[in-house]
Amino acid sequence: MRSVETFDSTLRDGSQGEGLSFSVEDKIRIVRLLDELGVNYIEAGNPASNVKEMTFFEELRKIRLSSSEIVAFGSTRRHGVSVQEDRNLCSLLDSGAGTLAIFGKAWDFQVTDILKITLEENLELISSSVAFLRQHGRRVFFDAEHFFDGYRDNPEYALSCLEAALDAGADTLVLCETRGGWLPDEVKEVTEQVISRFPSSRIAIHAHNDSGCAVASSLAAVRAGACQVQGTLLGIGERCGNADLSTIIADLELKMDIRCIKGKLEDLNEICRTVAALANISIASNAPYIGSSAFAHKGGMHIDGVLKNPRSFEHIRPEDVGSSRRLLMSEVSGRALLMKRIERIMPGLSKDSPEVVRLINILKEKEAEGYQYEGAENSFDVIIYKELFHSEPFFSLVHYQTIGSLPYADPEDGASHTALVKARVRGESAIAGAEGNGPVNALDKALRGVLEQFYPSLRQVYLTDYKVRVLSASDATASRVRVLIDSSDGEDSWSTIGVSTDVIKASFLALSDSIEYKLFKDRNRRR
Amino acid sequence: MRSVETFDSTLRDGSQGEGLSFSVEDKIRIVRLLDELGVNYIEAGNPASNVKEMTFFEELRKIRLSSSEIVAFGSTRRHGVSVQEDRNLCSLLDSGAGTLAIFGKAWDFQVTDILKITLEENLELISSSVAFLRQHGRRVFFDAEHFFDGYRDNPEYALSCLEAALDAGADTLVLCETRGGWLPDEVKEVTEQVISRFPSSRIAIHAHNDSGCAVASSLAAVRAGACQVQGTLLGIGERCGNADLSTIIADLELKMDIRCIKGKLEDLNEICRTVAALANISIASNAPYIGSSAFAHKGGMHIDGVLKNPRSFEHIRPEDVGSSRRLLMSEVSGRALLMKRIERIMPGLSKDSPEVVRLINILKEKEAEGYQYEGAENSFDVIIYKELFHSEPFFSLVHYQTIGSLPYADPEDGASHTALVKARVRGESAIAGAEGNGPVNALDKALRGVLEQFYPSLRQVYLTDYKVRVLSASDATASRVRVLIDSSDGEDSWSTIGVSTDVIKASFLALSDSIEYKLFKDRNRRR
Repeated sequence: MRSVETFDSTLRDGSQGEGLSFSVEDKIRIVRLLDELGVNYIEAGNPASNVKEMTFFEELRKIRLSSSEIVAFGSTRRHGVSVQEDRNLCSLLDSGAGTLAIFGKAWDFQVTDILKITLEENLELISSSVAFLRQHGRRVFFDAEHFFDGYRDNPEYALSCLEAALDAGADTLVLCETRGGWLPDEVKEVTEQVISRFPSSRIAIHAHNDSGCAVASSLAAVRAGACQVQGTLLGIGERCGNADLSTIIADLELKMDIRCIKGKLEDLNEICRTVAALANISIASNAPYIGSSAFAHKGGMHIDGVLKNPRSFEHIRPEDVGSSRRLLMSEVSGRALLMKRIERIMPGLSKDSPEVVRLINILKEKEAEGYQYEGAENSFDVIIYKELFHSEPFFSLVHYQTIGSLPYADPEDGASHTALVKARVRGESAIAGAEGNGPVNALDKALRGVLEQFYPSLRQVYLTDYKVRVLSASDATASRVRVLIDSSDGEDSWSTIGVSTDVIKASFLALSDSIEYKLFKDRNRRR
Repeated sequence: MRSVETFDSTLRDGSQGEGLSFSVEDKIRIVRLLDELGVNYIEAGNPASNVKEMTFFEELRKIRLSSSEIVAFGSTRRHGVSVQEDRNLCSLLDSGAGTLAIFGKAWDFQVTDILKITLEENLELISSSVAFLRQHGRRVFFDAEHFFDGYRDNPEYALSCLEAALDAGADTLVLCETRGGWLPDEVKEVTEQVISRFPSSRIAIHAHNDSGCAVASSLAAVRAGACQVQGTLLGIGERCGNADLSTIIADLELKMDIRCIKGKLEDLNEICRTVAALANISIASNAPYIGSSAFAHKGGMHIDGVLKNPRSFEHIRPEDVGSSRRLLMSEVSGRALLMKRIERIMPGLSKDSPEVVRLINILKEKEAEGYQYEGAENSFDVIIYKELFHSEPFFSLVHYQTIGSLPYADPEDGASHTALVKARVRGESAIAGAEGNGPVNALDKALRGVLEQFYPSLRQVYLTDYKVRVLSASDATASRVRVLIDSSDGEDSWSTIGVSTDVIKASFLALSDSIEYKLFKDRNRRR
C-alpha cells in the first residue's frame, strides 16, 4: 500500500490565522496531540521570531515524541549578510531541531520587486543557506515560496530555484502555492512537470485555500507523485487558511487507500476537538468528517433512509473517524425522530396518540419562539417528561433578583454580582443568596443554594460549557438571545437551552432545565 | 467565451442544513438577492412538503424577476399511485413554476433496499413522472439521486435511469453526488463518460462537501463538459453542505474565464452577507473570497509585501468580488501596521519614539488580558488618543448598579432590569436611571442618560451589533468573556471591545470605548 508523509504547520503557518495566538503550554499540548495522531512532521515555529519561540524550542527538547519529528522554520539568509552572521539561520541551528524548513523566493517578480535583488543573487541566497545548514548536519526542507505563480510566469527560473536548493543538499523540495489561487488540475500538471524534471527527488505540496480547493489540490499533487502533504489540522492559517489536514488525512486513508498517519484514524475527531479548544476556535459544524453536522440528518426522507441503512446517506462509517451519527429534531424531520426520543422515555406510544400530537405542537410553538433543540435535546426531554408524567414539578420559582455593581462590592474576590433566589419545593419555600463574577454565575449558585437542601444529588452537577448566541443583530443589546448550557454529573452529560430577550432570564431557563433533567434522570433510574 | 448556468438551491437543499429555517419574507428577500446576482435558476422549495411552501410559491408568482427563473422541486411519483393521483406531482404543477426538478433513484441498492421495488419499476416511475409533467407543458430537470454511487456499483443501471428520463422528455440530467464522498478526478471521469453516452444532452452537476471537495468536483464536471452547476450560495445544506456557489462563481469567472452570472461579480460579497444575515448564520471568517479574513494579512512579512505590491500575497484584487483588504493588528504583525493607525491620528511620529514604544507595550499587556483588536480596532484608537493627547477624560464612571428580577418589576413592557449610572463630567457629577430588557440594555440607556446631557451628539449613536464570546469554556458561567460592539452615528461605523469575567463589565467597557471614540472623532473633526 502506498504511503504519504504528513506535515502539520498549525503552530507556524496556522498561527498566522486571524484571531489566533498560542501560549507555550498550549503549544506543548498541541505537539503531543499531533504526535498521538502520528503526523510525520510538526513545524513548531520560527525560533528567530521572538524569545517566546526560542523558549518553546528549548521546552520541546525535553519531550520524547513517539511518531513525529519537530521541524523549525525560518528563511534563507538576508541579502548582504554572511550565512555565519545571519541571525535567522543561527537561530535555526540553536533550535536544536534535526530538520529545518527554510523558505526562499521562487517567483521572479518577488525577487526583483519585493526583495529588490537580482535573480542570480536570489539563487545564491538559496544555495548558500541550504549548504550552511547541511554543513551543520541538519536535514533541510526547501520551501519554494510562490512556486506555482513563479512557474506560470517564468518556469525556468522557478525550476532553477529548486535546482539550487537540491544541489546544495536539500532533502525535500516543497512546492508552495502561497497565494492559494490555483485550481487542482493545474496544480497536478505542474507537480507532474516538476517530478519529471527531478525524478529522484522528494516533492512536497503546501497549499492554501483562497479558491476553496486546497484539499483537492493537495490530493491532486499526491496523485501526481508528491510524497508529502503539508497543511494545518483544522485548516487554520493566514487569510482563507492552509489545506485542512483533518480532511486530507481522512480522504487519503479512506478514499485513496493511502496510509498517512501512524496513529489511529478513529482518534481524528477527538484530537481535532482538543486542538480546537486549545486554539479557542470552534470547528465549523459542517466541516467534513469532524463537524458536528458531518453525520447529522435532518430531512425526513434522509432520516428514514439512514434508519433503514446508513449507507444510503453516509459516505463512510462515522465511527471510522471517531464521529457519530446524529438525527436532528425539527419541523422538517417529521415524527420519526420525535418518536425515538419519546420511545426512550415512554415506550409504546403511537404516532397519533394525543400525547404525541400535543408534543409536536409544543415543539412547533417553541421553535417559533426561537428555540432549537438540535444540540440541546435534553430541554426537549424535560418537556416530554412533564407532558407524559404530569408529575408535581420538582420546584417552582417564586422570584429572583440579581444586583450588579461597579466598583465591585467586594473587590477582594472579584465578586461583581449578588443574586437572591426564592423557590417553592414540595409546598415549602426556601430562599438563598450567593455572589459571583457575573449575574449568571451568581444566579446559578443561589438557585443551587436553594435546591440542594432538598435534592442533595444536585451537588454532583457542574456546568461544562455556557454559550450565548444573539439571534437577531437588528436591535443590538435588546436582541433576543439563545443560551446553551452543557452540564455533567460525572456520569452523563446533557445540554439545555433558554431563549429570551433578557440574557439573564435565558440563562435561568437553561439552568433550570438542566436541573430538572438531572432530577428526572435520577428518578427514572430509581424506578 | 464559454458560459455555464448556475442553479441555486439555498431555499431547498440549503434549508436542510442544521439550525436553518426561513420565514416566507426571508425567502422572498433571498430570491430577490439571487436574482440580483443573476443566477440562472432558483430552486425555491418543495410545494408538496407543507402549506407554508405552497403559500410561498403563490407569493412568488406575483414577483417579477429580471435574471433568474424559479424552479419547484419534488420527487418522481410514489410506487402504487398513478401520476394523476400523485399528490407530489400535482403540487408541482400547482406551484405554477415553468421548470420543475424531480428526483429519482439512480443507485440500484437504493431501489431494492430503500424503496423496495424492482429495478424495472423504478425506471417506470421515472419515465411516467417526467412524461406527465411534460404533457402539462413544463420543462423538467431530472435529479439522478446518488448517481455517482450508482454508477460505481452498476453503471448500466445508473445510465438507464438517465435514459428513461431523457426518453420521457427531460430537459436536463442532473448528476447528483448525494453522499458527498467523491473526489474530483473520479467525478470528472464519470461526467465525461455520461457526456460521451448522451453527447447532445444537457448535463448538470450537483455536489455535496462530505470529503471537502465539492467546489473542486463541480469545477471538474464543468471541465468535463457539464453545462450547469448546482449548489447553495453559502455552501449551506444537509451534513457538510452543498457545493458553495459563492466560491464556484468566483472561480469560474476569475480563474476559468467562464461566464456564469448575469449580475456583477462585485456584488458577490454584499449579497452573500445579506443572505447570511437572513439565514442567521455567520460566514466563516476564512471563507474564500467573501470571508472577513479572505484578504486579511497578519504576518509582518505578508503585510510588508502587500504594502509594496498587493499581488505578492493576493491571488485576485479583493474589489473584484466586492471585498476589501484588511491589515491586522497583533504581536506578529510588527510595528508597520500600528504605525499606520497612529499616523492617521498623529502624523510624524517615528517608530522608536517613546509614545510608540509605550503604545506597543500597552498592546501587549491588553492582548495578555484577552483583548484582540482585530475587528475592534477603534478601541485601540481610543488608547492612542488617550496616550498621545493626555487630554482630560470626557467622563469618568463613579459607579453603576444593575438590578434584575423575575417576575419582572414591570411585566407590561417586558423591562426585566433597571440600571443606575453615576459619572463625572468636567468636574460635575450626574446620575441617571433607566430600564431595559436585560442588564446591558438598561446600562447602555442609563449611561447615555448621563452623558447626553453633556454631549448631545451622542444622541446620534446607536448600536448595530453586539456579540459575546466566551473565551475559555473551562469554568462555564464563571469564564472570561469578550464583548464586541459595533456602533454607528449614521455617517461612520466603529467597533469596540471589552473583556472581563463579568459580562456586564465587559459590555460596559465596550460601550464606554464606543462613546469615547465618537467624542474623540467629533473633536478631531472640529479641529
